[in-house]
Amino acid sequence: MSKISNRVSVLGLGAMGTALATALVHADHHVTVWNRTPGKEAALTAAGARSVPTVAEAMDAELVIVCLLDHASVMDTVDTTPVPSGTALINLTSTTPNESRSLAEWARGREIPFLDGGIMATPAMIGTEAGNIIYSGDNAVFEAHRALLETFGTADYLGADAGTAATVDFALLAAMYTMFGGFQHGAALASTAGMSASAFAERAHALLGALLGTLFDEGREIDAGRHTDPAQNLAFTKKAVDAIVRAGRDAGIDNAYLEPTRTLIDRAVAGGGRELGSSALYELIRHP
Amino acid sequence: MSKISNRVSVLGLGAMGTALATALVHADHHVTVWNRTPGKEAALTAAGARSVPTVAEAMDAELVIVCLLDHASVMDTVDTTPVPSGTALINLTSTTPNESRSLAEWARGREIPFLDGGIMATPAMIGTEAGNIIYSGDNAVFEAHRALLETFGTADYLGADAGTAATVDFALLAAMYTMFGGFQHGAALASTAGMSASAFAERAHALLGALLGTLFDEGREIDAGRHTDPAQNLAFTKKAVDAIVRAGRDAGIDNAYLEPTRTLIDRAVAGGGRELGSSALYELIRHP
Repeated sequence: MSKISNRVSVLGLGAMGTALATALVHADHHVTVWNRTPGKEAALTAAGARSVPTVAEAMDAELVIVCLLDHASVMDTVDTTPVPSGTALINLTSTTPNESRSLAEWARGREIPFLDGGIMATPAMIGTEAGNIIYSGDNAVFEAHRALLETFGTADYLGADAGTAATVDFALLAAMYTMFGGFQHGAALASTAGMSASAFAERAHALLGALLGTLFDEGREIDAGRHTDPAQNLAFTKKAVDAIVRAGRDAGIDNAYLEPTRTLIDRAVAGGGRELGSSALYELIRHP
Repeated sequence: MSKISNRVSVLGLGAMGTALATALVHADHHVTVWNRTPGKEAALTAAGARSVPTVAEAMDAELVIVCLLDHASVMDTVDTTPVPSGTALINLTSTTPNESRSLAEWARGREIPFLDGGIMATPAMIGTEAGNIIYSGDNAVFEAHRALLETFGTADYLGADAGTAATVDFALLAAMYTMFGGFQHGAALASTAGMSASAFAERAHALLGALLGTLFDEGREIDAGRHTDPAQNLAFTKKAVDAIVRAGRDAGIDNAYLEPTRTLIDRAVAGGGRELGSSALYELIRHP
């Protein structure tokens, strides 16, 4: 596809909105930016963006990308301003799946082509290959603006339900926050044996990195719904986790991060799951 | 150092003991194996190992590596058999830090050179570069047998306290189990939007892999004890985690894996930590 410059607006110049607008300017699009309070647009206008004082002016574009604080600030901003016919809206504000669905409903009522997105990247990653953004909602918006969206990094369309991208976004963030929590728990326990958190980070980085590939096995076991061919059965894992809980108690640290694993294993074992693999715990999370 | 064949015994032929003995046979050591119940030694004896029916015969070696079910089985096995003078003992059974210390105490009383180890690998990784084992206890045992221990993969000595290796081992396992739990939580949430666990594994693998490097930053923040220069402050993280908890509730999954993060953030924020980074949560785990 030949290079096409689009008239695109970015609403919201927080760290992420600024990164998005900057990537668009660098890709030679005609970029208009708006922020509720002025003072954040200097670098962008110096690079060639146009800054406007009203949302209505920013709405005069083929595509409007919204990256604000939360769902309430999105509604405050877009619901008070007429959207010109044909202008498409992409919400990259972090909203819950149901908030994204309600925004899609609002857009549908006004015949505004709408796409919701989840940014799986830090602002520094935007405009690089690591800058993945996932989208769901109106596929026509995604296809029409795909080349522009790939300015940010990789762009993946997940389906027509506008809540899908937010769900997957939150699911990945849940995995991320929990991984960092597990690291902090480990660092706290290791420190009781005199190891620095930096030294522990070296080891955790190596071990978790080596084990990340087994997530694919875990995914296959879950999809197959079997959990019957484990490298390590729950009876063995229970013994290990109970011992780690005892060690944490002996060392005087807060064991909270081990509680979900301990509790789920106990429930699975009590339900006859001694010989199953750890992927069986998934069922207890999915269907409580 | 020129290659030296050692007379080494392995007590316990579970999956891990078998992998250890196999690596030693492949490295041309004189390997003796013992298991409480017979029938697991066939492949090893075919490869050149000597199988003996009593622990006393296995103790006739320069080095005895113990890899049994748990601390009780270690004591049952070694406490009933005289250990020849000069024979060194390495415990690779998974034991708690205090159990490892009590085993070291027992060995000290009998003047048995003793080293405790934690295997940071699956059996399949033993004998490869990925086969890391960490050790603590008598440094002379580690130095005397270092070349042999490197048969298993990398070998790291962490200090004189025999409980250190087990502590770090458990700390890493805690991080590992928690990471897998976070993955399962994410897979469960993503499945409510119709995404398969295998598809979620692809995304989690990419995101967690990209973020693993930030564990070093987190380690530095913790060691500095500052937590004051965050990429994302706790007020922002609280908003995100609360939204993910709401989404999990809306989707009908068990939110247990998010509870520790949610609870720790609430405590930190209530204590005035709104502007701190997430590494501040470490302090609440370390000093409950």
